[in-house]
Amino acid sequence: MDRYLVISSDCHAGLPPERYRDYLDPQYREEFDRQHAARLAMLEKAGQRLEMAEESAKWAEGKNAGLSGAWDHDRRLEVLDADGIAAEILFVDGLTEQNSPPFGGDLGLSPVGANPELQWAGARSHNRWMSEFVSMAPERRFGLALVPPFWDVEESVKEIRWAVEHGLGGILLPPMWHDQAAYHHPKYEPMWSACAELGVIIHFHSGPAPMQDYFGAALFGAAAAASDEPAEPLVEMPGALGIYVTEVAWWLARPLVFMIWSGVFERHPTLKAAVTEGTSIWAPELLELMDHRYNAHHFSAKLGTGYRDAISMKPSEYFHRNIMIGSSCMPRREAEMRHEIGIHNIMWGTDYPHPEGTWPVTRKMMLETFHGLPEDEIEQMVGTNAAEFYGFDTEKLLPLAERIGPERSWFRDESARG
Amino acid sequence: MDRYLVISSDCHAGLPPERYRDYLDPQYREEFDRQHAARLAMLEKAGQRLEMAEESAKWAEGKNAGLSGAWDHDRRLEVLDADGIAAEILFVDGLTEQNSPPFGGDLGLSPVGANPELQWAGARSHNRWMSEFVSMAPERRFGLALVPPFWDVEESVKEIRWAVEHGLGGILLPPMWHDQAAYHHPKYEPMWSACAELGVIIHFHSGPAPMQDYFGAALFGAAAAASDEPAEPLVEMPGALGIYVTEVAWWLARPLVFMIWSGVFERHPTLKAAVTEGTSIWAPELLELMDHRYNAHHFSAKLGTGYRDAISMKPSEYFHRNIMIGSSCMPRREAEMRHEIGIHNIMWGTDYPHPEGTWPVTRKMMLETFHGLPEDEIEQMVGTNAAEFYGFDTEKLLPLAERIGPERSWFRDESARG
Repeated sequence: MDRYLVISSDCHAGLPPERYRDYLDPQYREEFDRQHAARLAMLEKAGQRLEMAEESAKWAEGKNAGLSGAWDHDRRLEVLDADGIAAEILFVDGLTEQNSPPFGGDLGLSPVGANPELQWAGARSHNRWMSEFVSMAPERRFGLALVPPFWDVEESVKEIRWAVEHGLGGILLPPMWHDQAAYHHPKYEPMWSACAELGVIIHFHSGPAPMQDYFGAALFGAAAAASDEPAEPLVEMPGALGIYVTEVAWWLARPLVFMIWSGVFERHPTLKAAVTEGTSIWAPELLELMDHRYNAHHFSAKLGTGYRDAISMKPSEYFHRNIMIGSSCMPRREAEMRHEIGIHNIMWGTDYPHPEGTWPVTRKMMLETFHGLPEDEIEQMVGTNAAEFYGFDTEKLLPLAERIGPERSWFRDESARG
Repeated sequence: MDRYLVISSDCHAGLPPERYRDYLDPQYREEFDRQHAARLAMLEKAGQRLEMAEESAKWAEGKNAGLSGAWDHDRRLEVLDADGIAAEILFVDGLTEQNSPPFGGDLGLSPVGANPELQWAGARSHNRWMSEFVSMAPERRFGLALVPPFWDVEESVKEIRWAVEHGLGGILLPPMWHDQAAYHHPKYEPMWSACAELGVIIHFHSGPAPMQDYFGAALFGAAAAASDEPAEPLVEMPGALGIYVTEVAWWLARPLVFMIWSGVFERHPTLKAAVTEGTSIWAPELLELMDHRYNAHHFSAKLGTGYRDAISMKPSEYFHRNIMIGSSCMPRREAEMRHEIGIHNIMWGTDYPHPEGTWPVTRKMMLETFHGLPEDEIEQMVGTNAAEFYGFDTEKLLPLAERIGPERSWFRDESARG
């Protein structure tokens, strides 16, 4: 084949918020109406404050047609074809922070200020829509169900079974638990068991971080989350966004640390997890560190050895067996580190339709990242790793890739770079 | 000189807890008596649970004489001489978790469940004793005052001035703020100003981490902290200690991220900070990441550029100008990474008298870490970097080092290794 099979490990889809109303159980629609107006006002205000809404709006100018692929089936296929993407993993949050399901049933699934019953209702409204959306092009779409896991693990298990029955092969869990139980807590065991039994792939996606640390409790603490009123910052916090972008990948990888040490992957050798859009550069050092701690030595002698009783292999071995990285929009440096990171753990992604993603200049960015690398390695990172991990039917995808995929020759030609 | 001048960037000293009573303001002594008994019971119980007290006790067998150097002036000089250490930086917490000042005025200075007035009283009892202890050997001892910064920044500024007047050249701040304001908050500005003006060096020391995440809120949440009663774990949390030792260095480095991005070192170019006993291996990747984020590019476009307004240089430039690492008990791998980390940022330390430290096998461990490296580089890492950063009078220390320091020839001889 002259072209690469490309699978994006990180794409987003979601309805304009008002259209989630129809996917809610009827008893929640009145509350939806009440919160919808307040939420829009709050988002607008927060957006101005964060300078982000303005930047996103600038980026979005002239792109409305392509962006409507966030929820429009036909439009999305056009966009993906033009972008050279044969298949994709579908996370919530179509247009950044503008396509969130209601009641905190969104990308962050934060427990802070959440009403468990409502959060479940919001998450389910998205899961229903996502199931429909995947069913329109099941060979190209791998959809994730939202699962807020903190409140009632049996409810989570039920939703996981519902997801599988409705064509969704993975779930999205929040990377941050705040005051709830972390992922080493034994209460989650039935959830891990259900995922392992059903082959459901667990996902964590970058974004959540302790915003109250950066911007203050008045804006992002529990009181603010529970209020309809947009809060005012009490003081300007210098550097807050720089701190956020420095830390955010760490908060994403954190659940893996808890799951690995507590033996989740020891007890469930076939369980699969992906961490998405948090860069890949943290992996080598984190694995080295965990393995170093695993090997008993003088400096950890005071801890005894009980701390590693839950696992029988080095932490890095679970990583390489059970975990993949959704390496959205990889910069060149990460491609150069591919062997340190683990070339079999890397799955490239576009992050379409987010402004920090590669669309609509995907070809240019792919070339910047991968030009000149060995073809078999590019092939793995842009497509076959994901095909295998997610179980895509490559027989069906290859003819499509032969038509729309990026040409191998482009990556050979240094002058075509960038 | 045939021997190295060795300065330990990480040593601990503190009284047996009951002896802090005399250093407390009288009005707090009754409360001290009440809490002291309850605290011992709690520590014992927690120690058994954590498997740590037992391991520490095993390690301490036969070492009582040397360990009493935690508070005994003469004994400490004997130990340091035998260990080859000419001078040292003195943190609180003499014997691990057995020499803590009262009322949470300890190494962690946690605000969780703390009574601000009492925490200040506890911290001051230690600062008074530390001032005396330093005055007995001021050319060899650099002592740190405990400063709980969250409650009243003016109080902190007053304590910083007191410290300088009483021979203490640095302060210890807690790396974790929990629900309090993080270190980018403008309210701390008078504290940074006072430190810069007086040349007081800010320290963060490893240890604190969100224990409630690892062991559960029942054991380590606010309610547990405020209670005299030892709590029972509700459930066993597998892997908790492995998670702790994986994460703990990250919690230590976190204040630097907040201080750098918010421009603390921009506004105070001469301010100095040290992060101690948290390994050094995180430095290269953290600096690379912050510099990458600092350089505006496509993937951060949606953030605008305001997030870096507080600083005029790359984050790594502040690190190399203002910050040092207390690289206690460095393993060989870190010595091999010394140029990536920044050889001028590394200050070796013994962690005496903690069980994870190098004492009483310091010579063996120094050789394991440094054998075969260039002498001028060993010299910097084991002594001259610290001498310069802390302003030790090397004229006074060199004759001592000539008598007690490790011989340069040992490090040349491969057969002497280990």
